[in-house]
Amino acid sequence: MNPSADLPEFADVEAAAARIAPHAQRTAVLRSRSLDALTGAELHFKCENLQRVGAFKFRGACNAVWSLSDEVAARGVVTHSSGNHGAALALAARTRGIPAHVVVPEGAVKSKLAAIEASGAILHRCAPTIAAREAAAEKVRADTGATLIHPYADPRVIAGQGTAALELLRETGPLDALIAPVGGGGLIGGSAIAAAALAPGMAVYAAEPEGAADAWESLRRGERVTELAPDTVCDGLRGLLGAINFALLKKYAVNVLPVADAATLAAMRLIWERLKLIVEPSSAIALAAILGHPGHFAGRRVGVILSGGNVDLDRYFGERP
Amino acid sequence: MNPSADLPEFADVEAAAARIAPHAQRTAVLRSRSLDALTGAELHFKCENLQRVGAFKFRGACNAVWSLSDEVAARGVVTHSSGNHGAALALAARTRGIPAHVVVPEGAVKSKLAAIEASGAILHRCAPTIAAREAAAEKVRADTGATLIHPYADPRVIAGQGTAALELLRETGPLDALIAPVGGGGLIGGSAIAAAALAPGMAVYAAEPEGAADAWESLRRGERVTELAPDTVCDGLRGLLGAINFALLKKYAVNVLPVADAATLAAMRLIWERLKLIVEPSSAIALAAILGHPGHFAGRRVGVILSGGNVDLDRYFGERP
Repeated sequence: MNPSADLPEFADVEAAAARIAPHAQRTAVLRSRSLDALTGAELHFKCENLQRVGAFKFRGACNAVWSLSDEVAARGVVTHSSGNHGAALALAARTRGIPAHVVVPEGAVKSKLAAIEASGAILHRCAPTIAAREAAAEKVRADTGATLIHPYADPRVIAGQGTAALELLRETGPLDALIAPVGGGGLIGGSAIAAAALAPGMAVYAAEPEGAADAWESLRRGERVTELAPDTVCDGLRGLLGAINFALLKKYAVNVLPVADAATLAAMRLIWERLKLIVEPSSAIALAAILGHPGHFAGRRVGVILSGGNVDLDRYFGERP
Repeated sequence: MNPSADLPEFADVEAAAARIAPHAQRTAVLRSRSLDALTGAELHFKCENLQRVGAFKFRGACNAVWSLSDEVAARGVVTHSSGNHGAALALAARTRGIPAHVVVPEGAVKSKLAAIEASGAILHRCAPTIAAREAAAEKVRADTGATLIHPYADPRVIAGQGTAALELLRETGPLDALIAPVGGGGLIGGSAIAAAALAPGMAVYAAEPEGAADAWESLRRGERVTELAPDTVCDGLRGLLGAINFALLKKYAVNVLPVADAATLAAMRLIWERLKLIVEPSSAIALAAILGHPGHFAGRRVGVILSGGNVDLDRYFGERP
């Protein structure tokens, strides 16, 4: 499939599942009696915090890397990323034995940078703006011939991210609702494709930080917002919704639920305490949306994609020596 | 089986598994590529932090409660407990609709007390010494006719705790080694029984805090130590090894590995960071023992029982308002 062409479809998600199977983790689906009682819903948590590099991002990166021809792959891959996609692409490149270049903004979460470096990628630092990041990635591409793998506005990446919902729905059977976070729209886009094929009547929700609610605003206006000054603790959800991702949200009638950071942090504590899982704020936002909108979820069987678990633990354990 | 009679056997563990099946969680077994790389072993983590009340203790309490005749059960149950067993017994009693009395020492972990109260048990506070706890529990027993369910020195409890290793070994097949923490010896006793039946050649290890190393000292002397002034962050492992538990450690040639608290806390951080699981120090000690004794574990397939995940999260999230 040409990465800049048509929208990815379910066949692309199925192909991605087969392509990444030798490399990706088939993650657990966990339940919690106490969170079911609290929400009045039957929650099925797809634990992508247990995915390799600690986030669903490995699925999309892995699918993209293994979609390349041998000749193109040999020149390497490059991306700009707030963290999890960078780490995921670095590891995916390592599974194929090709170079990975990762442009990272100053101020990125330390544990994520460490994960990227541990996978053997070459880091390129830049200013923390979307323009600076795209320019730096373009320069690497021009210099090396590496293929740019965008964190979310890429059909190969979207198809890969959709494999989490695919696994979830094949394990649970059809559900009444599915919810995932939305930043750039890779995960929710792929999830919506899988949902429409495997559970056609299911409602699909995207949880979005109030301080980075461009998906919500784009759907409200009917055209994609292209300016965003994100202000949220959800460091994985600061990206601007991609054009192809926006098209998928419209096509599949995804319902965006904006969430305040305070609610997200309270939900993160609940997940740590009740599910005994480390998730990052960008994951916990999905539970916060469920708690904040009981009318959409109470009494229903709900799939929840916990997208990742990369948090800086220094706050709990103190700085490393 | 008379609770004060002979040592529990594998048939008792199997009976316990059937008895608790309607109530207990069949917990996940998780792997971690990065922890395998770090230890040089193939680790299979049995996640009892995902058990009800957040600890394996629910298994033993549930087996004990459902072993009682209707007449005896109606008078209720009582225990003294540093926390997880109290919460477990309270919930187990609720599953049978009978009263639970729990004697708790002053200074017990707040999140554990909250879990006990949430299950509807009647709390009885006492001084934080073993003698004061036993006296208070005896008074409740005399006043109410409730049956005392000791946290670990009880064959019904031990048989119940053994169901975690039973599930693990039935899922993984025989392993080379099994490790679990030792405090009073309920979990390791039950685990050793299951191990001997399901994987006869397997080495069984107990991880014990250096600051509460009475199991290690008891085996060294050949007789059970009966005095202990515990000094360890592992609040679940401060109990004194029981007589019946000591007999099981000897019968099954369990190898005790003492671990310093600093190593346990470092291992806890590793589990939070790499496995994305919240475990308490009393669980993390098992990984610390593996890291500290590579000669016993490197190159081997190892079962690790992660015993619980009840930690006070105020340190990370700040006090609740």
